[in-house]
Amino acid sequence: MKDFFNVTPLEKVFEYIRMFPVVAVEAISIETATERILAQDISSDEDVPGFSRSTMDGYAVYAASTFGASEGNPAYLTIDGAISMGENPTATIVPGQAIRISTGGMLPQGADSVVMMEYATEIDETTLEIYKSVAPGGNVITKGEDVQKSQSLLSAGTKLRPQEIGLLAALGIEQVDVYKKPMVGIISTGDEIVPIRNTPGPAQVRDINSYSISSQVVQAGGMPLSFGIIKDNYDALAETCRRALQKTDMLIISGGSSVGTRDLTIEVLESLNDAKILVHGIPISPGKPTILARADKKPIWGLPGHVTSAMVVFDRVVRPFIAHAAGINTESKQHGRLISAKISRNVASTQGRTDFIRVRLKQSDDGLLAEPVLGKSGLINTMLQADGLVEVDMNTEGLDKGTDVSVIPL
Amino acid sequence: MKDFFNVTPLEKVFEYIRMFPVVAVEAISIETATERILAQDISSDEDVPGFSRSTMDGYAVYAASTFGASEGNPAYLTIDGAISMGENPTATIVPGQAIRISTGGMLPQGADSVVMMEYATEIDETTLEIYKSVAPGGNVITKGEDVQKSQSLLSAGTKLRPQEIGLLAALGIEQVDVYKKPMVGIISTGDEIVPIRNTPGPAQVRDINSYSISSQVVQAGGMPLSFGIIKDNYDALAETCRRALQKTDMLIISGGSSVGTRDLTIEVLESLNDAKILVHGIPISPGKPTILARADKKPIWGLPGHVTSAMVVFDRVVRPFIAHAAGINTESKQHGRLISAKISRNVASTQGRTDFIRVRLKQSDDGLLAEPVLGKSGLINTMLQADGLVEVDMNTEGLDKGTDVSVIPL
Repeated sequence: MKDFFNVTPLEKVFEYIRMFPVVAVEAISIETATERILAQDISSDEDVPGFSRSTMDGYAVYAASTFGASEGNPAYLTIDGAISMGENPTATIVPGQAIRISTGGMLPQGADSVVMMEYATEIDETTLEIYKSVAPGGNVITKGEDVQKSQSLLSAGTKLRPQEIGLLAALGIEQVDVYKKPMVGIISTGDEIVPIRNTPGPAQVRDINSYSISSQVVQAGGMPLSFGIIKDNYDALAETCRRALQKTDMLIISGGSSVGTRDLTIEVLESLNDAKILVHGIPISPGKPTILARADKKPIWGLPGHVTSAMVVFDRVVRPFIAHAAGINTESKQHGRLISAKISRNVASTQGRTDFIRVRLKQSDDGLLAEPVLGKSGLINTMLQADGLVEVDMNTEGLDKGTDVSVIPL
Repeated sequence: MKDFFNVTPLEKVFEYIRMFPVVAVEAISIETATERILAQDISSDEDVPGFSRSTMDGYAVYAASTFGASEGNPAYLTIDGAISMGENPTATIVPGQAIRISTGGMLPQGADSVVMMEYATEIDETTLEIYKSVAPGGNVITKGEDVQKSQSLLSAGTKLRPQEIGLLAALGIEQVDVYKKPMVGIISTGDEIVPIRNTPGPAQVRDINSYSISSQVVQAGGMPLSFGIIKDNYDALAETCRRALQKTDMLIISGGSSVGTRDLTIEVLESLNDAKILVHGIPISPGKPTILARADKKPIWGLPGHVTSAMVVFDRVVRPFIAHAAGINTESKQHGRLISAKISRNVASTQGRTDFIRVRLKQSDDGLLAEPVLGKSGLINTMLQADGLVEVDMNTEGLDKGTDVSVIPL
């Protein structure tokens, strides 16, 4: 029997993130940039809006002309025509005058506010009766109120949501620099693994991990590139690793939870260019036999063969490395991913390791409940039933029924 | 002044969802199916796994042979060789025998459990000493334990996550039927709107909405198709609407928050084939002047021109219609989108309408805080600062500081 290996605590694993580079940059159209990661800082060359605009249908006025106006004591102003949408008004308003204006119209010189049409009546062609005063700036967005010239707006590392895309459009930026999607190579290993189109013979199973991990890579913002199924054979695995490293930014090898296969994987990884084994075992469940190595300055993962273990390790451990490679500013918005719930029953846990419990979310009179999914950790069915994971940290012996938990959505 | 129009309560608007069809179905490879919507039910033709497998490195045994074994009183078994990965074992185990087996290996006839290698020592080539008993079924996943033949597994309307993709691979399904992505036509209207590559003249603004709404359509699972900027002109808008309806499943017209422009839009919509105005105003803020019509059996939206109002109406009102068209089973997993927080200060609200307050999320000693974003609703900057929306329903006068709120992420 082999000695127990020295496991690396999860927080130590994450310290290796900064050892690896961020991918290169490409310029793309903002029309295809949704959820891509900005690779440049954005500031404005101009004021937005470029002129003072009405936010209501009504009358552009000099506000002081309306002061004191009320239902009982209306103010009377002279109507001096109308401003069309998109028209640069040439008229200048003087106190006592009003010009018809629509929502979005440009305020003329001399006007500082807009009286809403609901509070005014045209007595005749040229006379306006106003029932309510308006303050200076009322119903107006002033020049530069949204964005000021030279204002810093977005920084590299921001994930582009629809509002950021809208801002880029507002600034007239048609193309932006974004980080390329990291290419992630995927290798399934195991003498028992067959392509999914095959009917497995006795003792054989289909290659699930190539597909589930590829799908996770897509969700994490990467580009998966599958290198197929490799038998438990030193030369075949080493050759495939070398080929995959040339084409990708990161490599994920799954399979072989047996000690023999893990040893083979370690031997292959040690043979690669500029290789170093960084992590050989992490005190988490599922996922303890996880390996992290570096070769050609790229991270290479050895994930467990069990589909569910591989998926949990990917989500909790590998994903932050992809986020880093993808250029994501990982300080932002992470809290947004967690869902608050109460655990529905007692959960046992082993001290000294971090457990990730699969849970199903259910509404109850008592709020949202997180129900642990039963079943052995190797079963993909437990992942299908799960809405998320609850982390039970290594210093906790377990969770009592009703404990508040933060659910990591799956 | 025009009469106030009759607004339609939000829950009534949603009753129109089922009036509209779901898009057609296409068969695609599971490699490109992540986050697509399944359009068929999936059940299994076979047991998964197809044979009983070990979940540990160790020795396959007949469990009863180990009963009573302990450190002080080990059991002794005869070692009868080893099972390789992927090998269909021909040997049959009898009580008192053990066979070496690796994680994932197939159990031989007669074995019902696996003793972990940690609890056994090979005394010599053929003698195994066992320190701990194992129960029948211990460290084994039995045939069909994950998925049973003929078991119903997935139903149409399910969004495919990595675990569903993994399940399809496990079943040997390379292609699945999914719903096509709904094509959503987008038209920007307004005499003041110019293409984003132009430098806006006085009184002009760039076409933000075509880009921000397209990006929202992508996030909602649709395919945006932009029909450009149309001036406030009956014939031009009517012709573009007709052309767009031929190519899309839904149409979104944004712009024209002025009464005159809204009236023009209504006139155009009424002129379309088989047209009916369903909604003309919704008691929400922002977004009251929203229009919903039906023509050619397709939904057509008139959204406010203000970028932020249009975005909020899209997220809260239009998105469920896209989800329906896209075939999504909207009953599932909706709770997953909400984030629990406490509002950081008092918020005023008007009874009789539903307010959507933009908030920024911030960690505090008191848990997650939702801070209302200040600034006029027309400013895109308020959306950039926002992490989500808080709904203040029409029967509430406002929110007191510290109230628990559910934040809809943006």
